[in-house]
Amino acid sequence: MIKIVSVGKIKESFFREAILEYSKRLSKYVKLEIIEVADEPLIEKALEKESERILKKISDQDFVITLEIDGKNMNSLEFSHFLTKTMSFNSNLTFVIGGSYGLHENVKKRSNYALSFSKMTFPHQMFRVILLKQIYRSFKINNNENYHK
Amino acid sequence: MIKIVSVGKIKESFFREAILEYSKRLSKYVKLEIIEVADEPLIEKALEKESERILKKISDQDFVITLEIDGKNMNSLEFSHFLTKTMSFNSNLTFVIGGSYGLHENVKKRSNYALSFSKMTFPHQMFRVILLKQIYRSFKINNNENYHK
Repeated sequence: MIKIVSVGKIKESFFREAILEYSKRLSKYVKLEIIEVADEPLIEKALEKESERILKKISDQDFVITLEIDGKNMNSLEFSHFLTKTMSFNSNLTFVIGGSYGLHENVKKRSNYALSFSKMTFPHQMFRVILLKQIYRSFKINNNENYHK
Repeated sequence: MIKIVSVGKIKESFFREAILEYSKRLSKYVKLEIIEVADEPLIEKALEKESERILKKISDQDFVITLEIDGKNMNSLEFSHFLTKTMSFNSNLTFVIGGSYGLHENVKKRSNYALSFSKMTFPHQMFRVILLKQIYRSFKINNNENYHK
């Protein structure tokens, strides 16, 4: 028997239809049970509170770079070029690192660039260190380039 | 100027030290400001509530497979083999799909296997469809194998 326990209701009707169709097909092979448990609206609200705190620290003219799982993946060299380029047209860069459960939509909307250093396989607390290290390496890389010219 | 806005306090002292060290080094190159905003303890509590609802639906003898970003990545064929193998020693499989903000530690602890179909680049609502499709394909693959024997 296969049971699928999932959180929250499926809103999109085409997803619901697809689920129904696959459930029907699967029932030939295995006993299937799909269980929906209610999601907790407080999570959304709490993340929204966090987002307000974050947005308060961002100025209108800031170029905002959010760290997101689905952001653009870059290695050190790519990031270094990205940083140089971005700082050449905007002198105020603001990086945003969310909490353990990510960032609220409000922050993502304000973001000018979604960035990802890895697929989040390291502890969340390490994020800040990695970001700083990457920024530091960028400045080193750019500096060396100038030095060798 | 570079600003880093991040949610939550860094607890580990070696991370704090690393941050301090990189901040110092970076200060030679750029004006740096690190801003910590408070995280919202309600998120943790709300996710815990969700986890209780999930755990209630799981029996002691269930083999629990959670869908997690950092889970083992498998393609259809690998998943098909995994499913056959797992069902051969446990007839009760329970897949768990969390809400938009993932799963609480309590559910991860109960999990027997963390699985990932992709690095979560598709909408969360689609998860259930993809899981069903993968399970369906597995049964098809296994069936055809038997058929051609």
